[in-house]
Amino acid sequence: MAKLGSSKVDLSSITSEKLWEKSGRLSSVGSELFRFKDRKDTGYLLSPTHEEEVTTLVSSSLKSYKDLPVRVHQISRKYRDELRPRHGLLRSREFIMKDLYTFDQSIPLALSTYYEVTAIYAKLFDELKIPYLVAEADSGDMGGNLSHEFHFPTTKGEDHIISCKSCGYVSNEEKAIIKFPTEEAGSCDEMSIRKWHGISQDRSTLLTAWYPSSNDTSELNPVSEVNIRAVKAVYPDLDSSVDSPNAQAMFWAHQAPQSGSELATEAKSDQTQRLIHLVDGRISSEMSEKLPLLGPSNSSGRERLFDARLSTEAIIETWNHDPKTEEPLSLLKTRTGDTCPQCNKDKVVVQEAIELGHTFHLGSRYSKPLEANILLPVEVTRDHEEDYEFTEEGQKSSSRKAMIQMGCHGIGVSRMIGAVADTLADEKGLNWPRVMAPFDAVIIPLGNGQLDEAPEVIYDALLQSQTTGQAPLDLVIDDRKRGFAWRMNDADLVGYPVIIVVGKKWASEKICEVQCRRLKVRQDVPFEELPTFVNSLLDQL
Amino acid sequence: MAKLGSSKVDLSSITSEKLWEKSGRLSSVGSELFRFKDRKDTGYLLSPTHEEEVTTLVSSSLKSYKDLPVRVHQISRKYRDELRPRHGLLRSREFIMKDLYTFDQSIPLALSTYYEVTAIYAKLFDELKIPYLVAEADSGDMGGNLSHEFHFPTTKGEDHIISCKSCGYVSNEEKAIIKFPTEEAGSCDEMSIRKWHGISQDRSTLLTAWYPSSNDTSELNPVSEVNIRAVKAVYPDLDSSVDSPNAQAMFWAHQAPQSGSELATEAKSDQTQRLIHLVDGRISSEMSEKLPLLGPSNSSGRERLFDARLSTEAIIETWNHDPKTEEPLSLLKTRTGDTCPQCNKDKVVVQEAIELGHTFHLGSRYSKPLEANILLPVEVTRDHEEDYEFTEEGQKSSSRKAMIQMGCHGIGVSRMIGAVADTLADEKGLNWPRVMAPFDAVIIPLGNGQLDEAPEVIYDALLQSQTTGQAPLDLVIDDRKRGFAWRMNDADLVGYPVIIVVGKKWASEKICEVQCRRLKVRQDVPFEELPTFVNSLLDQL
Repeated sequence: MAKLGSSKVDLSSITSEKLWEKSGRLSSVGSELFRFKDRKDTGYLLSPTHEEEVTTLVSSSLKSYKDLPVRVHQISRKYRDELRPRHGLLRSREFIMKDLYTFDQSIPLALSTYYEVTAIYAKLFDELKIPYLVAEADSGDMGGNLSHEFHFPTTKGEDHIISCKSCGYVSNEEKAIIKFPTEEAGSCDEMSIRKWHGISQDRSTLLTAWYPSSNDTSELNPVSEVNIRAVKAVYPDLDSSVDSPNAQAMFWAHQAPQSGSELATEAKSDQTQRLIHLVDGRISSEMSEKLPLLGPSNSSGRERLFDARLSTEAIIETWNHDPKTEEPLSLLKTRTGDTCPQCNKDKVVVQEAIELGHTFHLGSRYSKPLEANILLPVEVTRDHEEDYEFTEEGQKSSSRKAMIQMGCHGIGVSRMIGAVADTLADEKGLNWPRVMAPFDAVIIPLGNGQLDEAPEVIYDALLQSQTTGQAPLDLVIDDRKRGFAWRMNDADLVGYPVIIVVGKKWASEKICEVQCRRLKVRQDVPFEELPTFVNSLLDQL
Repeated sequence: MAKLGSSKVDLSSITSEKLWEKSGRLSSVGSELFRFKDRKDTGYLLSPTHEEEVTTLVSSSLKSYKDLPVRVHQISRKYRDELRPRHGLLRSREFIMKDLYTFDQSIPLALSTYYEVTAIYAKLFDELKIPYLVAEADSGDMGGNLSHEFHFPTTKGEDHIISCKSCGYVSNEEKAIIKFPTEEAGSCDEMSIRKWHGISQDRSTLLTAWYPSSNDTSELNPVSEVNIRAVKAVYPDLDSSVDSPNAQAMFWAHQAPQSGSELATEAKSDQTQRLIHLVDGRISSEMSEKLPLLGPSNSSGRERLFDARLSTEAIIETWNHDPKTEEPLSLLKTRTGDTCPQCNKDKVVVQEAIELGHTFHLGSRYSKPLEANILLPVEVTRDHEEDYEFTEEGQKSSSRKAMIQMGCHGIGVSRMIGAVADTLADEKGLNWPRVMAPFDAVIIPLGNGQLDEAPEVIYDALLQSQTTGQAPLDLVIDDRKRGFAWRMNDADLVGYPVIIVVGKKWASEKICEVQCRRLKVRQDVPFEELPTFVNSLLDQL
């Protein structure tokens, strides 16, 4: 953060709802917010992120466009009322995040900042010495149009990252809408067809996506699933927070909110009911005609109940093609073996992964609603008008008013602790990368009085062995009054990268035993070789 | 904290309301809590302190009484829905506190811990090198019966600290109930009498305290005020969170909660209405009889309204004496010049002060309701039964179950920053004590190319001058590309304890100018004397 010229700030965990109303996020992120009123009945929320507050703070402290760029970061507790908190630190309702916010005067400068930050973030992840993926990502509720995620591949991960070895394409499944190969169009003519329900934001439209289920499922090639992003691309008013099992119930609840009995109630809403059937392009037109589409005329069995409640004015449509592109619908999540959408040559691999960092180029997503503007002398903007987003008001002959171009860049600190612990722990205990470990190495003497001076001799020798420019070793001596076995076991649990045991061979031969579970090292090392040996291990951790 | 053997923890800022119900604090501190529900309608609050959570955490992790003592501390954000947030960091709704919680097996061990902590806290305050007071304090909502506060005397303070030079008595006014000298009893026979209202917790009793207003008011000897603690000592059911202007309104609101019109409504509650008149013992009995005491028979004017609503069964009493001690009532706050209640010889001084730390011996205040108990072998407790608080259940022939004895000890971190800034700042900018300053000293070169190497020469010389055991100097060079005057001004604003100016005399004579606003120093110092000179200044800061 120092290299980026960023200043550390500490914003309140509590934000006024008014600011979030202005930015429009109060409704879009609403269900995940912890909200409360103070004793004066003013509405507040526990911030999950701080775009609104930091934009207000920075724009009110700018005196001139020359004060830009501004970069500020903080490490603080954030809050999200998760539907299903799980996996300990991996998904919790209170978590620690490092967030960085950047402010530039023009779009090119903001993009240059964006790539400067992603490069620095990559360096930070490099230091963990654990494999990670940088994926193109969807901006979601945050807004903006350029975004990358930093992921650890792990089976506990909730994201799916698609990558292609040939061309280097890496993308979050949410972002990747992969078209199926032309030869698959209409290839499904069996009754192995499934359906998925979604609902519109205004609750007046029920979507049913029909898709072929795969025949060849395996761990690498799991059951086909609908890609909600793909449905939203076709029908942007989809409420992606409602899952399939609840969509039908919500549709009816909205039509007849007072309903006591299911059958008796007629639709009470003034809105026209719409049923839209989305049929994946892999389903052949013959099969498509045989689908038990819902509607007053052609349903049977349990679904008659549904029909009976449908208004006679209900609109029922079937879409086989994207209404904008007119291409056949491609509604499924990408699976390992699908063709890479970038190079169109090799097959992609899908990995489960956990998101640890996310960078966003926000542009004017927040500066526009929060009116975070700057005045620029006309001579600055004259030859590069396309680099700026000017406001509609405040233009003068000598100066022009433009929206500040922003970026935000988060790293999940507590989640990273959980993910690293989960990735590197073994049956004996934790294993920390050097940069996260409480100490680089622990020195454990046997505990008989004879060796009392040995740990300090080793401690000093290791410290003095450091050459200039190298990070100084951070060592600890476990001289607690507990048995040797207890302390060894505790060292394994704590997960020090390196353990130096001062045992019986010290008195006679000045030899220690050096242990490193991650590198499967357990070796006697003479005192004079100890510094080189320990440093060579640490360089790999 | 390391000297106390305390471990650092990080408890959630969110606490379940259930725990606070168990401890009884949900109702007693209720109005100051930010409370909210999650998406499952479970009640939570933003913790102002963490006794409930830490008690549960520690007692659930103890395996044996031998694991005691346990001491844990944290530095984290706390929340309080203040009625009147003010003075910036001095009283805010979100603040940073360092809190320490201690757990012992017996009362004497817990008391010994208590005094160990207050001694360490005093050392911490000593390091600020700013005068402070340690006062006997009231435990308030926190509970327990032994408590001290650490205060900075300042006119912005909201507390009043009473001290006596002769005997060393120091107490918070809240805690000190000072009896007036016998010769003052019944001395007030003029109509300079004021009244104050209070209400009982159950809202059925309205208290009216009658007291003489002083004739000789001045800055040192301000207007007499009722000491709410003194009223509560006489009438323990007083709700001290309700101020005088609201007490009457609350009394009626409770009697007739549905009241539309004030006059029309009769008392609806089943509780008997009580009016208690407390008459300060300084008021003579002749005067006392002339007071316009409220009641069906003897009121007039505006107060007839009050009378008209009073139930015919209302009980009206006048108390001139404390019902327990039978002494004349002493209801006023202590003022400078009152006689010291400890030595009964000298006169006390009352100072405005701000509370920065508070230590509490809690005993079993939290361990009892939260059932934080330990099993002790009978041979441990046999000869010292009075040292333990045994539970009613769980006693065996081989072991006895006792409540853990607790303490809690807080320091207001953000408030301390505000108080120190406020106490030491002058018209030029901030002034930080050495232990709080971002750097011990700043080195500011004139900024012409000639002196480029000088700042680093000075930096190195000052670092190398440190003798072993001394804290290493923490220095910074202001080599920013701004004018000399701008950087000097900025250094004054930031409040570095010492400023070392490398000016024109450096090139010719190797002389710097050393500035220290707090000690009013501005002096030319030759290079070779610089380390001694700078260290001698810092030792005083």
